[in-house]
Amino acid sequence: MIIQLDPHITAANKAAIEARIQELKYKATEVKTQRAHYLVAIGKADVDLRAIGQLPGILDIHRVSDDYKLVSRKWRVRPTVLDLGDGVRIGEGSLTLAAGPCSIESEKQMELIMQHLVDNDVRIMRGGVFKPRSSPYAFRGLGMEGLKDFHRMARERGIKIVTEVMQVSQVEEMHDYVDVFQVGARNTQNFNLLDALGGVDKPVMIKRGISGTIEELLSSAEYVFSGGNEKLILCERGIRTFETASRNTLDLNAVPILKEKTHLPVIVDPSHGIGIREYVPTMALAGVMAGADGIIYEAHEKPEEAASDGAQTLNFAESERLIRNLRKVYALRQELE
Amino acid sequence: MIIQLDPHITAANKAAIEARIQELKYKATEVKTQRAHYLVAIGKADVDLRAIGQLPGILDIHRVSDDYKLVSRKWRVRPTVLDLGDGVRIGEGSLTLAAGPCSIESEKQMELIMQHLVDNDVRIMRGGVFKPRSSPYAFRGLGMEGLKDFHRMARERGIKIVTEVMQVSQVEEMHDYVDVFQVGARNTQNFNLLDALGGVDKPVMIKRGISGTIEELLSSAEYVFSGGNEKLILCERGIRTFETASRNTLDLNAVPILKEKTHLPVIVDPSHGIGIREYVPTMALAGVMAGADGIIYEAHEKPEEAASDGAQTLNFAESERLIRNLRKVYALRQELE
Amino acid sequence: MIIQLDPHITAANKAAIEARIQELKYKATEVKTQRAHYLVAIGKADVDLRAIGQLPGILDIHRVSDDYKLVSRKWRVRPTVLDLGDGVRIGEGSLTLAAGPCSIESEKQMELIMQHLVDNDVRIMRGGVFKPRSSPYAFRGLGMEGLKDFHRMARERGIKIVTEVMQVSQVEEMHDYVDVFQVGARNTQNFNLLDALGGVDKPVMIKRGISGTIEELLSSAEYVFSGGNEKLILCERGIRTFETASRNTLDLNAVPILKEKTHLPVIVDPSHGIGIREYVPTMALAGVMAGADGIIYEAHEKPEEAASDGAQTLNFAESERLIRNLRKVYALRQELE
Amino acid sequence: MIIQLDPHITAANKAAIEARIQELKYKATEVKTQRAHYLVAIGKADVDLRAIGQLPGILDIHRVSDDYKLVSRKWRVRPTVLDLGDGVRIGEGSLTLAAGPCSIESEKQMELIMQHLVDNDVRIMRGGVFKPRSSPYAFRGLGMEGLKDFHRMARERGIKIVTEVMQVSQVEEMHDYVDVFQVGARNTQNFNLLDALGGVDKPVMIKRGISGTIEELLSSAEYVFSGGNEKLILCERGIRTFETASRNTLDLNAVPILKEKTHLPVIVDPSHGIGIREYVPTMALAGVMAGADGIIYEAHEKPEEAASDGAQTLNFAESERLIRNLRKVYALRQELE
Repeated sequence: MIIQLDPHITAANKAAIEARIQELKYKATEVKTQRAHYLVAIGKADVDLRAIGQLPGILDIHRVSDDYKLVSRKWRVRPTVLDLGDGVRIGEGSLTLAAGPCSIESEKQMELIMQHLVDNDVRIMRGGVFKPRSSPYAFRGLGMEGLKDFHRMARERGIKIVTEVMQVSQVEEMHDYVDVFQVGARNTQNFNLLDALGGVDKPVMIKRGISGTIEELLSSAEYVFSGGNEKLILCERGIRTFETASRNTLDLNAVPILKEKTHLPVIVDPSHGIGIREYVPTMALAGVMAGADGIIYEAHEKPEEAASDGAQTLNFAESERLIRNLRKVYALRQELE
Repeated sequence: MIIQLDPHITAANKAAIEARIQELKYKATEVKTQRAHYLVAIGKADVDLRAIGQLPGILDIHRVSDDYKLVSRKWRVRPTVLDLGDGVRIGEGSLTLAAGPCSIESEKQMELIMQHLVDNDVRIMRGGVFKPRSSPYAFRGLGMEGLKDFHRMARERGIKIVTEVMQVSQVEEMHDYVDVFQVGARNTQNFNLLDALGGVDKPVMIKRGISGTIEELLSSAEYVFSGGNEKLILCERGIRTFETASRNTLDLNAVPILKEKTHLPVIVDPSHGIGIREYVPTMALAGVMAGADGIIYEAHEKPEEAASDGAQTLNFAESERLIRNLRKVYALRQELE
Repeated sequence: MIIQLDPHITAANKAAIEARIQELKYKATEVKTQRAHYLVAIGKADVDLRAIGQLPGILDIHRVSDDYKLVSRKWRVRPTVLDLGDGVRIGEGSLTLAAGPCSIESEKQMELIMQHLVDNDVRIMRGGVFKPRSSPYAFRGLGMEGLKDFHRMARERGIKIVTEVMQVSQVEEMHDYVDVFQVGARNTQNFNLLDALGGVDKPVMIKRGISGTIEELLSSAEYVFSGGNEKLILCERGIRTFETASRNTLDLNAVPILKEKTHLPVIVDPSHGIGIREYVPTMALAGVMAGADGIIYEAHEKPEEAASDGAQTLNFAESERLIRNLRKVYALRQELE
Repeated sequence: MIIQLDPHITAANKAAIEARIQELKYKATEVKTQRAHYLVAIGKADVDLRAIGQLPGILDIHRVSDDYKLVSRKWRVRPTVLDLGDGVRIGEGSLTLAAGPCSIESEKQMELIMQHLVDNDVRIMRGGVFKPRSSPYAFRGLGMEGLKDFHRMARERGIKIVTEVMQVSQVEEMHDYVDVFQVGARNTQNFNLLDALGGVDKPVMIKRGISGTIEELLSSAEYVFSGGNEKLILCERGIRTFETASRNTLDLNAVPILKEKTHLPVIVDPSHGIGIREYVPTMALAGVMAGADGIIYEAHEKPEEAASDGAQTLNFAESERLIRNLRKVYALRQELE
């Protein structure tokens, strides 16, 4: 059960509510986010919500049977929209596009890519400065120095940044230089990292685990939300199956399922999802038709020379064509019955 | 290597070609289909195609490195289009729609559904008369008597029939009553059945195996083609993964991959694919955007009373809305760059 | 619910039982096997078993909530033991070994392998004469002529034969030449084939589907049993997962689970299971320790020259060592608490 | 290529070797562990090892084509044995047993379990104080205070501790209170954590990722090793597949494969692997027969009251019987040919 408290609730009234919850043998977790103040109460007894709901200091109360609570659409019906500032919004009512290289490689590269984005009115750039690599001997990114350059150049051009945070200690140092923290597919269940991001007032995009269920993705989002951060985005990026014709199996089924189960925006990453350049645009278009709020994909001035993931990265001509097509598909989707 | 022979090749010329192939230590399989006469030659030696290609009686020759040969687009670049008669065509240039119940249940039911199809200008009806059921105690379909009624009623209304054939002995008895033989997901590697369907002059739609790779689906099609039947359709219908939020994982990645690897038409079955009614229309639309040549889905006058698969079956109102939307999405796809 | 009928039940008594079942809105399937006569009744109402059990003509009655009934150990607690004649038995109380090539290739080969088996007191030879091959251009086995030779030579040496049947029409022609029909992993859900094998008085070994669940394997066995044939063996042979370091993932978890859920014997096939020769013996030993009633594996006089599956096939020296070790492990297992 | 340096190599000699490597366009990583001093050089050119190997200051040089290098058995043929002190060793030549609860719950509980271990001569206790939980509302363990009690009580009884570390910041605070750091299945690719553990002189047991390949597990081990810590143990604990009859699919195939590919000890966790109490002992025995160097499993004084994982946890009677059986199976394995 989710109880939304009056932001000016008195200590006495809050204590009375907590006492009532305890009587029911429910366990309450207090959650204060940027937007509101909640008690999430978990227990087994059948409860008459009205009896609790009438206690003073309660704005709203809902029963949520899912394992995830605060991210459930059973509780919050209206879709969440995130405002990144400067007119950049993510969620219902607009199509979010984010593009860029797998790894940030140089200033020159960033300049070229940002120009490409500006030319096509794409407002968000993706790019890694800390790279999770399965081999310890592979290139691991430019680190904080690269991020600072990335941030400065993006600011100058009105572009927002989404980049991966890999560990708790990076949250603070990266904080002022990112617009959206990305939690990568290998960290979807790094619960300490999720906890840390719960304490931050910046949007967090959580990628589905490489073999993570939809339910687990929602529970990971619940970690961040219950830690105090409502600003969440979910990202489908392909799961691991027996099929080897694609790098991963982009699971577009997850899009309508997530859109029905949660109020959070859902983004699709076709680059990692199918992992083969020539099929990326098609899967991006299909992703929008499946109901995605946006597409994040890899683009590079010379994919064949990219430091990583070149085989799934679009060049600028491909990217431009894709952007035009994505907008047409999104426009049609809005018109469908 | 695929050698297309002159349909009027002399016995002497054919023998000379075969002798040449044998010299190369290649193994040749002779294939005569409704449309042409081929030798499929498999071996390891490097061969100068021109030297063979100049032999008298050869129309065309191609090297195909894939394990599947005759279904490969490396050999035949132009997409295959199937003509079912009465203006019903499957493949490039049109969107094929096929709808109907999981199982044919009664004349009354067929009448209602066929009227629904006619009203919406859908020309193909799906419906099982032989049902593969994992439990021996479940309803197994109306059998041949049901099929005969199905066929008669469809003929009267200008509707074509696609229905599943489960075993070799049914091929002959069903032959005159079906327009498209369906090979179900549990029979994708029933090689005897594929062989038998190679001897028939009727289109065959092969569903991807429940855990079948894209490569295996193509090899199964190769069975039918090399048996003499070029009239083939492939169907993506969801694969088995760890995810349990959907019945299967409809793998839309397979669509662009298949369209690039083979000249055969590709149909998507979202009903079995995601298996939950409310998400079926969305996945159907995404399937068209992914490049499918058509959609086959389950519709029923009262899904909640269906003999099987009710939970993934649309009612007529849902079906109508879907048909309208599918046509809009297909129209847009044709316009994209 | 399973009702075991008196073999000499009168028509009137049987009709009375059936009427009683119908009153309960249960659907009854009559099953006559080599050993007994049953009614399998399926329905939803709560039933007092004693009330039915007292009807004349009933020997025994059990409630079975599993989807599979006759193969469930909830009903038949005692493990099934199959007698192949000449002292060859499969099931509880002995370790069954079966070895041989993937495909029968020649008389000379059979002679060598049979001698190897006789020398090591292995009583069952495996070997395919009809081979399911994913490519239509691959070697498909020696067919019936090969089987007749196989049978004749085996008889002369006191060896029993297990070989794969691929389609309904082969059941009759193969019948007199096999000791155990094998249903391959691609045919586990070929329900017509299972039905046909239900009509035969020969043991049937059903391999688990390439991506078949344990539940589906049991349902497939239920098909054969409810068709009238109790002589069943189940075989774990590896499932398809994301892991590519082994050919398949031999799922030894299935062994204790199957042994608890069914009274049928369970055999392990490590050759297909892990698919890499050097690991086959270890997995065979682990399979026995996991509780298997036997091991079926591929052995060949010259694995590197085998017509198929050479990479997972043991040579005679490896096979001999494995046999000795298997027997020691089985002996120890019998002694464990 | 792995170059083992003389521990007393001169700076000039080292510089000369590095210069030679650079000439070859190889990239060298210097690795200093508790035991030795290496250069791991990665590149593409064909190199004559002898030419390099003769440079002064080189003890040994090997070519390793695997993506993982230092953990490969192609380089180090002798199995690694870890010495935890007080006669407790892990690796070739002995069977390691570790048991205990999923979570440490209380002093009383620890006392009971430690007594059980002492009674059965089991020298290692497992137990979590930081618990990764998919829901943020679940019990997350007793934390550092619990660990300090755990450590004190274990020391008094001569027992070694293995417990999970979840994040970089815990490495230092936990360091003095653990004997083996465990990296959980959700952190197998938490590369920062692996890096941090590379800087520690304590053994690290890495669990295979929930959907991690064998190759990825080895690469994760390479992270720790190349960070400077040779004291590594690998743990197979079940992978995620489509099968739902078991909690996970314990992949015993991984055992012989890992034993052949790496010199590191391999432990099997049947509790998480199959996840159902009644099957845990059987899978533990099969794990030893598959070649495991040890078994880690969950035991609890009252499994039905355990704070977590009760359904897969053995009680003391079951645990005792298992220990006796495991030792018999291990003894037999040592005797097999």
